Amino acid sequence: MLYVIGIGPGDKRYLTLMAIEVVKNSDVVVGSRRALDLFDIEEDKKYYLTKNLREELKEIINSTKDKNINVSILSTGDPCFSGLLKTILSLGVKKEDIEVISGISSIQIAAARLKISWEDYEIITLHGREENRRKLLNLIKNNQKVIFLPSNVKEDMEYLINNGVNPGKEMIVCENLTYENERIVRDSLKNLLKMDFSYLCICILEGDK
Amino acid sequence: MLYVIGIGPGDKRYLTLMAIEVVKNSDVVVGSRRALDLFDIEEDKKYYLTKNLREELKEIINSTKDKNINVSILSTGDPCFSGLLKTILSLGVKKEDIEVISGISSIQIAAARLKISWEDYEIITLHGREENRRKLLNLIKNNQKVIFLPSNVKEDMEYLINNGVNPGKEMIVCENLTYENERIVRDSLKNLLKMDFSYLCICILEGDK
Repeated sequence: MLYVIGIGPGDKRYLTLMAIEVVKNSDVVVGSRRALDLFDIEEDKKYYLTKNLREELKEIINSTKDKNINVSILSTGDPCFSGLLKTILSLGVKKEDIEVISGISSIQIAAARLKISWEDYEIITLHGREENRRKLLNLIKNNQKVIFLPSNVKEDMEYLINNGVNPGKEMIVCENLTYENERIVRDSLKNLLKMDFSYLCICILEGDK
Repeated sequence: MLYVIGIGPGDKRYLTLMAIEVVKNSDVVVGSRRALDLFDIEEDKKYYLTKNLREELKEIINSTKDKNINVSILSTGDPCFSGLLKTILSLGVKKEDIEVISGISSIQIAAARLKISWEDYEIITLHGREENRRKLLNLIKNNQKVIFLPSNVKEDMEYLINNGVNPGKEMIVCENLTYENERIVRDSLKNLLKMDFSYLCICILEGDK
């Protein structure tokens, strides 16, 4: 069986018991170094993903299928939210041939930190989907509450300002959630533009009162 | 400190290591019998929630505050999605006095079972918010993909049909996810109306092709 396993935001303590159990019973475990390091597994079971994600996934999936072994692919956050599920399905793997184990998404950690309920927000991902910028823009112009996964925080903010969003509008950036260098900044778009952010960010816009 | 802890959909294997650790270090653990049973804790630390959720929460929060002890409140799913966070804040507890630990929401389990990515869906809860039925209706009429948490599956379906949704429209009901009696049914609204469902359901509508 091919398992696609959500490993949460990066801190080991957000692993589920299910993720730990399935990985333990796997013959091959596939993931980034950071993901693999969260688990206590023998070195010879590990398959490191590096740069050519699609190609490497394709190779490992093809070379293990029909072998009657358990293969686990580790996906940051939840495989079903901007995660590896979509990538794996796009490689032609059939839905009936995989099992998905949910993980905690960084969207949820952001909500937990800010103590907000995410059913009150529009949730949108720009990650790998820059065409969603226009959708984001419309939501903000309609004054809706939005949580978004940026493609590039700086470029996304520039797009919003260049398309008529008030540079004084407040946004919250949650960076490196659950990591030692976690940072949560609440400021105007124009001030946020002067700062540097890592690629691990979640942005929140509250509608104006 | 007051912790609000997501315990996931109900199966112990979806607990995070963080939830287990925080509960272990708590002096008082508050939850339904079902929630408390997921943890290995001494009986005298347990505080059972029964019927008057708000009143009972108020009592335990008031009687433990200023005591410099750790109190954990267990919330099914994710406290930040149709969970106990909102209830607790509505009791006047200040955001800075609580810490929230994310949990796996049943929405995520539904997505994992169906192998869909929830960033492609509008997510809406009718649970305790029947006014959202109109919003749901509009989304369906606009042919959008929707995942919703019903208030009452039968009544929600009747509302949709009575307001012009085609009774032949297909919906997926995911019931009792992660429990032994888990069931996933895909059928037309008119056929689903003939079935009985528990109160633990997630419904999914795919836009028509």
